[in-house]
Amino acid sequence: MSAEKVPSLLEQLDTLETNLYQQDFLLTWKQSDADLRAVLLAAEALEEMWRANVSARVFQGGLAVSNFRDKSTRTRFSFASAASLLGLSNQDFDESKSQVAHGETVRETANMISFLTEVIGIRDDLFIHEGHRYMAEVAQAVETGYREGVLPQRPAVINLQCDLDHPTQSLTDLLHLKKTFGSLEALRGRKIALSWAYSPSYGKPLSVAQGIITLMTRFGMDVVLAHPEGYDVIPELEQLAGKHAQESGGSFRKVHSMEEAFRDADVVYPKSWAPYQIMERRTALLRGGELKKLEELERECLADNARYKGWECTERLMRITKEGRALYMHPLPADITEVNCDAGEVAKSVFERYRVPTYQEAEHKLYVIAAMILLTRFESPAGVLTRLLDKAEPRRFG
Amino acid sequence: MSAEKVPSLLEQLDTLETNLYQQDFLLTWKQSDADLRAVLLAAEALEEMWRANVSARVFQGGLAVSNFRDKSTRTRFSFASAASLLGLSNQDFDESKSQVAHGETVRETANMISFLTEVIGIRDDLFIHEGHRYMAEVAQAVETGYREGVLPQRPAVINLQCDLDHPTQSLTDLLHLKKTFGSLEALRGRKIALSWAYSPSYGKPLSVAQGIITLMTRFGMDVVLAHPEGYDVIPELEQLAGKHAQESGGSFRKVHSMEEAFRDADVVYPKSWAPYQIMERRTALLRGGELKKLEELERECLADNARYKGWECTERLMRITKEGRALYMHPLPADITEVNCDAGEVAKSVFERYRVPTYQEAEHKLYVIAAMILLTRFESPAGVLTRLLDKAEPRRFG
Amino acid sequence: MSAEKVPSLLEQLDTLETNLYQQDFLLTWKQSDADLRAVLLAAEALEEMWRANVSARVFQGGLAVSNFRDKSTRTRFSFASAASLLGLSNQDFDESKSQVAHGETVRETANMISFLTEVIGIRDDLFIHEGHRYMAEVAQAVETGYREGVLPQRPAVINLQCDLDHPTQSLTDLLHLKKTFGSLEALRGRKIALSWAYSPSYGKPLSVAQGIITLMTRFGMDVVLAHPEGYDVIPELEQLAGKHAQESGGSFRKVHSMEEAFRDADVVYPKSWAPYQIMERRTALLRGGELKKLEELERECLADNARYKGWECTERLMRITKEGRALYMHPLPADITEVNCDAGEVAKSVFERYRVPTYQEAEHKLYVIAAMILLTRFESPAGVLTRLLDKAEPRRFG
Repeated sequence: MSAEKVPSLLEQLDTLETNLYQQDFLLTWKQSDADLRAVLLAAEALEEMWRANVSARVFQGGLAVSNFRDKSTRTRFSFASAASLLGLSNQDFDESKSQVAHGETVRETANMISFLTEVIGIRDDLFIHEGHRYMAEVAQAVETGYREGVLPQRPAVINLQCDLDHPTQSLTDLLHLKKTFGSLEALRGRKIALSWAYSPSYGKPLSVAQGIITLMTRFGMDVVLAHPEGYDVIPELEQLAGKHAQESGGSFRKVHSMEEAFRDADVVYPKSWAPYQIMERRTALLRGGELKKLEELERECLADNARYKGWECTERLMRITKEGRALYMHPLPADITEVNCDAGEVAKSVFERYRVPTYQEAEHKLYVIAAMILLTRFESPAGVLTRLLDKAEPRRFG
Repeated sequence: MSAEKVPSLLEQLDTLETNLYQQDFLLTWKQSDADLRAVLLAAEALEEMWRANVSARVFQGGLAVSNFRDKSTRTRFSFASAASLLGLSNQDFDESKSQVAHGETVRETANMISFLTEVIGIRDDLFIHEGHRYMAEVAQAVETGYREGVLPQRPAVINLQCDLDHPTQSLTDLLHLKKTFGSLEALRGRKIALSWAYSPSYGKPLSVAQGIITLMTRFGMDVVLAHPEGYDVIPELEQLAGKHAQESGGSFRKVHSMEEAFRDADVVYPKSWAPYQIMERRTALLRGGELKKLEELERECLADNARYKGWECTERLMRITKEGRALYMHPLPADITEVNCDAGEVAKSVFERYRVPTYQEAEHKLYVIAAMILLTRFESPAGVLTRLLDKAEPRRFG
Repeated sequence: MSAEKVPSLLEQLDTLETNLYQQDFLLTWKQSDADLRAVLLAAEALEEMWRANVSARVFQGGLAVSNFRDKSTRTRFSFASAASLLGLSNQDFDESKSQVAHGETVRETANMISFLTEVIGIRDDLFIHEGHRYMAEVAQAVETGYREGVLPQRPAVINLQCDLDHPTQSLTDLLHLKKTFGSLEALRGRKIALSWAYSPSYGKPLSVAQGIITLMTRFGMDVVLAHPEGYDVIPELEQLAGKHAQESGGSFRKVHSMEEAFRDADVVYPKSWAPYQIMERRTALLRGGELKKLEELERECLADNARYKGWECTERLMRITKEGRALYMHPLPADITEVNCDAGEVAKSVFERYRVPTYQEAEHKLYVIAAMILLTRFESPAGVLTRLLDKAEPRRFG
């Protein structure tokens, strides 16, 4: 495959006034539209270059540090892949094997792991009000370290999922939508249903839902958030989605019925999460070490949760979407009824019909992360990619 | 050291009609003789090139994923070394840190870790009837993912030891024999004794024994399998060894005496394993979660095992081998009497006499793995190696 | 930034008669002054080259193996960074995932992980009389393996902290002193107070204190070791410090008062450690598996320890140092009063005043490690670095 599509992507990238150089990528709503468009264009260019066997190794060594405070497969491998793609060595920061266990401060640790580091990717999504705070603290620490002359370069902190946002996922989703509908402009006026769905497990982060409603409203989409009573997301982020919709000419509304959300939708995104208020109580109990009350809370939640087994993305519901063939989306892994659980977020036949596009979508994430690294670490990313393309060093020999 | 032997190895490699490109390497008996010879030749070439300081980095990034479901030192380091040798980034897939804990399917996980992946190495040897099945499922998943357009390249799945076979070990052994006796042809008519030996530990995999009897019978060797009554290997694989012997003009027979096996042997391979029937009962108990019965089974086995302390590779036994100086082989680590246990597989003085060749043999494994990657990932491996040799980029600067 | 300082560093490096090629780096007192000076010069050159964006990748693949038997952040990341800087793949040797759990000998394991290995970094500082012994055993094993033809190259073993010494730390400290005071010669006659300080934790290694008193006495410094009665370091190493002082024209003495040590000091180094005799009793109890007695010992020690809360580096004490502005040093992480503990080694305001230089110092460690690799693995390290400089391949593209 040739890299023929790349020059036009880089031309578009070159016209954008971005503000990511020497910055972090923590929350999509802190970034301009140009920043977001640039991430997508750079990701597309890198993906085409890989397929055309053009090496994208902009670094000859240096570290990409990952810090996973929760389990992860695809984000872990996406981050490691992005590092390898660009020529960085991936080094996992495992707090249990570190001096953090000796009471070291975040400020200090962040500097100590960063002397040769270009990027620090963090997942911290278990506790409400904590994940973003931690990432911001790390970002502040390396920014200060760089200004003070401690660090020879300023590593970018990239949010690999926090309590508020999941930007590498939501931008991967946006890229999938762009490719599916042809352009970002083609998303205008399209209805996307971000709906809560039933899962037998408990305590899933809210950040996917929050990331989608705040991002898609910026591109003129008609975003409908659906969930059972009590399964609210963070109120400020609902308000932000409303504001984004007003500015972009899209819309945002909330309903308490999956049917209502799915009706005439172009895109459906059924996904489980834990109620915001529950997450707050849970965080408080965890902080207080009140394990007994925590167990009670979990029992209570699971009982409550079980009342909403009807919130499943079924064939019946898919039929009421636009022309009966809305695009189904999920960040994976989905709870698929009769595949990995008795009753879950989506019916087996629905998932299976959309399995291949959903898997293909997942591929974008590594390029989204690589694009974030490129945009935060290079002043002229389009120029860098152009020179790589001209150099045309094969990624794979032979 | 110069790479002067390499061109002749590559000439031989070039004449072989192999069928490994875009395939996996799971079981030696599923591969043609040409495939096996090609692995040895490519491994030898890569080993010579390392010693001659010629870089073998055919990749500029991309992942080599390892998935160890059992402990490992030399295979873990062999795999990581092969990855580094060829220019891939080694990424361990640790299921406990992944979404597999959330009930993700093998099909999905296999694709999610493979977007930039050239090879997936798997060790899964703890449960009979499970290891190979798992590897085959992963291989099927990435094959389908590649055909469906999910994966941009088709990673090769390499068996780093399953319940049936241990091909990276048995081919390492075969390469050691080839080098020791001068050629594969020189193995014809040589007697190799693959004998069970006593170990104080319990539950060692059967795959080394099974790998040796099925592989060496293909090269005209007289293979004798020796073990106490009840310590059978999988019957179908004994039959396969017999069939191979018939086809190659070698022989295969089974005896219940170490003496009989060792008499006039050119090569002895004393190695402990658990009886097949016990492994089956154990797997069933483990699946059923019957821990008490599992403990009983283990006690019973160890008691039974203790009756065979006489099955040790002693000086006395070595004296009855061909001219009293058969080649001793072991995949390591051996249970050495008075070194790391009170009574084990081999006497200290015997092991010590063969220690250096046994260690040297172990080096081949990393090149065998690298050869498997090269042969499965490149259509013309001889051509690729020839161009590397011509390029002569130093592995080590200076 | 340009690399203009590098040629003069390399000229100096080139004049030194070092004896590190094909050796290990285990204890500073086993190395000549020229060896130590060479480590500093090579470290400085590598640091300047990184800042000038000159790639230092002397290897195209091969392994850097790390073996951490105790927690670590900065040394772990320093080692991984040094590996990435030079082009090696970092591979952690985790004994719990290895065949060491099956009773493999150190000799064998050391060889099995070393076929493509250029360096093995080991931290083993938990048990007195054990860490150095283990490293020496590994070094002996790979030396023998290399001589026997098992290993194609001889990996260097680098001490990342043992029970006796912590050379990557003490040489990092020496480099910091050299940069702070202008030259190694400028250290002559300067007073450094290596003082025990209170920490609420228990059982910290003695090797930092031992490393500093034995190293700084070689450069003509007036070294004062201060600690409460009973908190002795290993007597032989105190004697060695005395001998070094005599040879270099410096001095070494011991006091039991922080005040006395700090008075007129140019440099203060307050750092907690466990008493030598206690560490010996602890090691014996651990070996004997006497957990109850171990708990008693810990209780006893902590009670004893609590009597010395006054041993804190306060503003009052800093005022009695030379002109009231001695350089404060610490290997980090420090126990900082009111930051990460109620009462610790250093007052918050003192630490904060020296935080930036202390963090900057920490950066040197990765280059010290890289320098050790370069000096042990290349016969003409100055020549290698000169050719890298001439080649001027950018570390970072663009």
